[in-house]
Amino acid sequence: MAEKLLQNIQNPTDLRKLSPEQLPVLAKELREFIIDIVSRKEGHLGASLGVIELTIALHYVFNTPEDLLVWDVGHQAYGHKILTERRDRFHTNRQLHGISGFPKRSESIYDTFGVGHSSTSISAALGMALASNLKGETEKQHIAVIGDASIASGMAFEGLNHAGVTDANLLVILNDNAIGIDPSVGALKDYLTSVKEGKNPKDNNMMKSLNFEYSGPIDGHDLDALLKELNRLKHKKGPKFLHIITTKGKGMQLAEEDQVKYHAPGKFDAITGEIHPKSEENLPPKFQDVFGHTLVELAKQNEKIIGITPAMPTGSSMKFMMEAFPERAIDVGIAEQHAVTLAAGLATQGMIVFCNIYSTFMQRAYDQLIHDVALQHLPVIFCLDRAGLVGEDGATHHGAYDLAYLNCIPEIMVCAPKDELELRNIMYTAQLGLEHPIAIRYPRGRGLLQNWQQPFERMEIGKAELLRKGTEVAVLSTGFIGNNITEALNTIENSGLFSHYHFPFVKPLDTETLKDICEKYKEIITIEDGTVVGGFGSQIASFCTENNYIISVKKLGIPDTFIEQGTVSEQQQICGIDVNSLKTIFTSR
Amino acid sequence: MAEKLLQNIQNPTDLRKLSPEQLPVLAKELREFIIDIVSRKEGHLGASLGVIELTIALHYVFNTPEDLLVWDVGHQAYGHKILTERRDRFHTNRQLHGISGFPKRSESIYDTFGVGHSSTSISAALGMALASNLKGETEKQHIAVIGDASIASGMAFEGLNHAGVTDANLLVILNDNAIGIDPSVGALKDYLTSVKEGKNPKDNNMMKSLNFEYSGPIDGHDLDALLKELNRLKHKKGPKFLHIITTKGKGMQLAEEDQVKYHAPGKFDAITGEIHPKSEENLPPKFQDVFGHTLVELAKQNEKIIGITPAMPTGSSMKFMMEAFPERAIDVGIAEQHAVTLAAGLATQGMIVFCNIYSTFMQRAYDQLIHDVALQHLPVIFCLDRAGLVGEDGATHHGAYDLAYLNCIPEIMVCAPKDELELRNIMYTAQLGLEHPIAIRYPRGRGLLQNWQQPFERMEIGKAELLRKGTEVAVLSTGFIGNNITEALNTIENSGLFSHYHFPFVKPLDTETLKDICEKYKEIITIEDGTVVGGFGSQIASFCTENNYIISVKKLGIPDTFIEQGTVSEQQQICGIDVNSLKTIFTSR
Repeated sequence: MAEKLLQNIQNPTDLRKLSPEQLPVLAKELREFIIDIVSRKEGHLGASLGVIELTIALHYVFNTPEDLLVWDVGHQAYGHKILTERRDRFHTNRQLHGISGFPKRSESIYDTFGVGHSSTSISAALGMALASNLKGETEKQHIAVIGDASIASGMAFEGLNHAGVTDANLLVILNDNAIGIDPSVGALKDYLTSVKEGKNPKDNNMMKSLNFEYSGPIDGHDLDALLKELNRLKHKKGPKFLHIITTKGKGMQLAEEDQVKYHAPGKFDAITGEIHPKSEENLPPKFQDVFGHTLVELAKQNEKIIGITPAMPTGSSMKFMMEAFPERAIDVGIAEQHAVTLAAGLATQGMIVFCNIYSTFMQRAYDQLIHDVALQHLPVIFCLDRAGLVGEDGATHHGAYDLAYLNCIPEIMVCAPKDELELRNIMYTAQLGLEHPIAIRYPRGRGLLQNWQQPFERMEIGKAELLRKGTEVAVLSTGFIGNNITEALNTIENSGLFSHYHFPFVKPLDTETLKDICEKYKEIITIEDGTVVGGFGSQIASFCTENNYIISVKKLGIPDTFIEQGTVSEQQQICGIDVNSLKTIFTSR
Repeated sequence: MAEKLLQNIQNPTDLRKLSPEQLPVLAKELREFIIDIVSRKEGHLGASLGVIELTIALHYVFNTPEDLLVWDVGHQAYGHKILTERRDRFHTNRQLHGISGFPKRSESIYDTFGVGHSSTSISAALGMALASNLKGETEKQHIAVIGDASIASGMAFEGLNHAGVTDANLLVILNDNAIGIDPSVGALKDYLTSVKEGKNPKDNNMMKSLNFEYSGPIDGHDLDALLKELNRLKHKKGPKFLHIITTKGKGMQLAEEDQVKYHAPGKFDAITGEIHPKSEENLPPKFQDVFGHTLVELAKQNEKIIGITPAMPTGSSMKFMMEAFPERAIDVGIAEQHAVTLAAGLATQGMIVFCNIYSTFMQRAYDQLIHDVALQHLPVIFCLDRAGLVGEDGATHHGAYDLAYLNCIPEIMVCAPKDELELRNIMYTAQLGLEHPIAIRYPRGRGLLQNWQQPFERMEIGKAELLRKGTEVAVLSTGFIGNNITEALNTIENSGLFSHYHFPFVKPLDTETLKDICEKYKEIITIEDGTVVGGFGSQIASFCTENNYIISVKKLGIPDTFIEQGTVSEQQQICGIDVNSLKTIFTSR
């Protein structure tokens, strides 16, 4: 075998020394490199395999990093990272102190914009392009690569709508593979499919209607075609739109065949592609599956129940409801704003809506939550998945702010169940009928209880629970993180000093129990899997000072800073809320 | 003159007793009724005048309230309110205990969805339509009336994109008048203009691309045409899109000629339309104008400064920058998400961006603020206009949550200037260069200082100020509301008990001064023009308990509930933060 091309490429300058004929060879090597490392280290696979040719062509044709390249979401940027000075660190992908799984400005000059959430690339690249125009850098190109799932989100449309009336040197490349994490949905997707199939005449083009110079669709795995078209566009001024067709998982048969599974397959065999089976025996369930199966159980009994997910049927396990009741479960695509107001509209007609949104993506629908739901007292049930620290996805994906941004909204109830049973029971309780909306937040990953499919019990809204009785210090927790308290107290000698109260409801607060606590103990320690600013502990502190209780309140949780990628366990250590840190705190009392 | 038709119409059932030939007469009466009352009581004028015929036609043709009608934003719903059992209460529009200036579910069965913020109608009506399908009510129609400025917002696109793949009986009526509050912008607007002018063939239609049955454009002031087309659409299943052309302010010459001024003209002469001149002599300036003129002053000295407004050039006074530096001031339309990420993109290239967004609309770009700006340490300068209680616009429009939802974001600075000079000085300070983003919040309306155009002074970030020295109680305020404290303390006998500290920065907090306060005083009272949950007072309380200071903290501000329409003064009374309430609190000490 000849010397590998890839090992001589540190950056795009090296890449540009290759002949066009060598690029397909490089593409093959790059694919193998990604497959090899991701098969062992885990990570996102399919998206990057789908844009190998595009990645090479962009860095080959454009003058990166002078020309500015923005990857939407960033799942697909592994090839980009490897070709831009990070090949030798790529094995640290998504690890603590390693490189981020997403483009990140602080990591490389080639990462022009930090991403993670979708549909930001057009706005960001347009901002860069307008800045270049103001600086007189009118030769510079600004490129946004965005998938067909991401471009259907409202924010992308806002960017296109603005770009079309500017003279910005903006090239939007639609990477159309008909899938995000799950298959794309919506009318735009159908339209793009018809364009691909040649059913739309070239002059009937939405992007032309928005004043873009449109070209495509072209085969995104055909390097010659890509080079030719990108070279043409490189010298064009103004807003341009290139439509390319790719296959997610390209070059690895199983990944092409099961694109959902191979979005982030975990460890697998680099040669065959077979995913290493994980034994799930004797493991507690994922909270996601508890949600998904419980929703189906409830929906069988209550025909008013509807499920909504914005583009996360697999991740949230809404897929179970979609399979069982296809008419009553809706994937609206990457459209959190629409998801929430759609839920509000359904609720006005008496429907009981379980709207499942990752905590970090609920930030996208904050106004709709306030203005369309809470203000109208509509009893929508929000299930905020992946609340708290999320691990390897890192700073962009933590559900760190939900307790704080929910607390301040009137009329909403906020619940953080401590385990699978409580998640089931609050879901059951909520669908019995509430007068206000409720947000139920729970973490990513596995719970504690193998025997979780217990009969439903109605929960009392706003009631705290004494889990352990002690003498001096009251430890107040909310949510699953409270189990770290239990574990810590179970293993220290002075555990008799500590009472442990679980507050399933951050709002409304159990003020009766709180008064009792303030009168009985010398000190309060609060713990939450969320920011300490404005969250659960903050509410407790305010309660104490407002009611003239003379008591210290120590707040544990996510500190007021961004926490980078790592395992959840490492991140808990950084925040001082892992079991060992808690033991240290407790034994010092 | 014959007996008026309008006075015999309590609701649409009465309306439907009229002959089609009588409807133009009713339209005339309805216009006169609105003009008469708004001329005396103030309110939004132009939008409702523009949809008089549409309003009559919709209630005449459709079976409201069985058929469900959603008005986007709701500025245009005065005719609707008058025809649906609120004629006799219409003179209480926007007043305390009166009717809301916007559709509101609790007010009438004809108000199917509460609005105020834009672009929610398609999602809401689609939710209702999907609910009807599930209930087997397949004859029911669901109508969203949305303007061309609102439909350009991303959320509306998300709704259209979803609706196009459903069989929902949804009729989207585009009320195309080429203006929101200010003239519409963007590529879609240009496209719609070309459609209106017949420059696009009928088969080149964006809405058809999204699977809607499209009809129009038709003249929205032609009742015959409207009746005919609505009657046709009434019996059509599935998603339909009707494009109508109207004139904002229709039927009142001056309102048609100056649509921006007559959006909400204040008091005017009902016959001539002349706006009653207000003497501005000896009045302090509006904070909006302080912002607008100061930005121009700074931009003259610093060529990196850019201004961005999402569709509020007049309301925010960004118009001054747009006039002075058209290349450096951008109205992106109703697109808060895009506005924020565009600002982030500009900031990556060293531009100093003043992104002016009403506090209540910043809720629309919360994720972009966290994910695209704060997480990347981009020093974008956010000017949050209309922070705090806003008066007659009511519950949908208060800027009540900003301090709470900003506090919990790492890396961001949060400033609430106490007066015009401080607003100028923090703007000056911010553009000198910061390492993080800053949000500057200030209220709607006039400040205090006639002599506000003073030379700039650099502010020290995070530094509090002692305004008045007392002995026992420390009153801590942030923002303009602090002047109520000053006024209250100036007029009570026991004012010597009170120190008054102004905290221009809610984040970072001046912990040195706070420590000092906690050591010197027995009690703290905090006041803010924002929710007491998670805001300024909450931060103070947390500081005290975290640091074991034994001190009571009483938090004043907007209570944890939605505050309805009224004057700002009435709303302050409701919240207990007006001067008189403060005096009562202080004198009881």
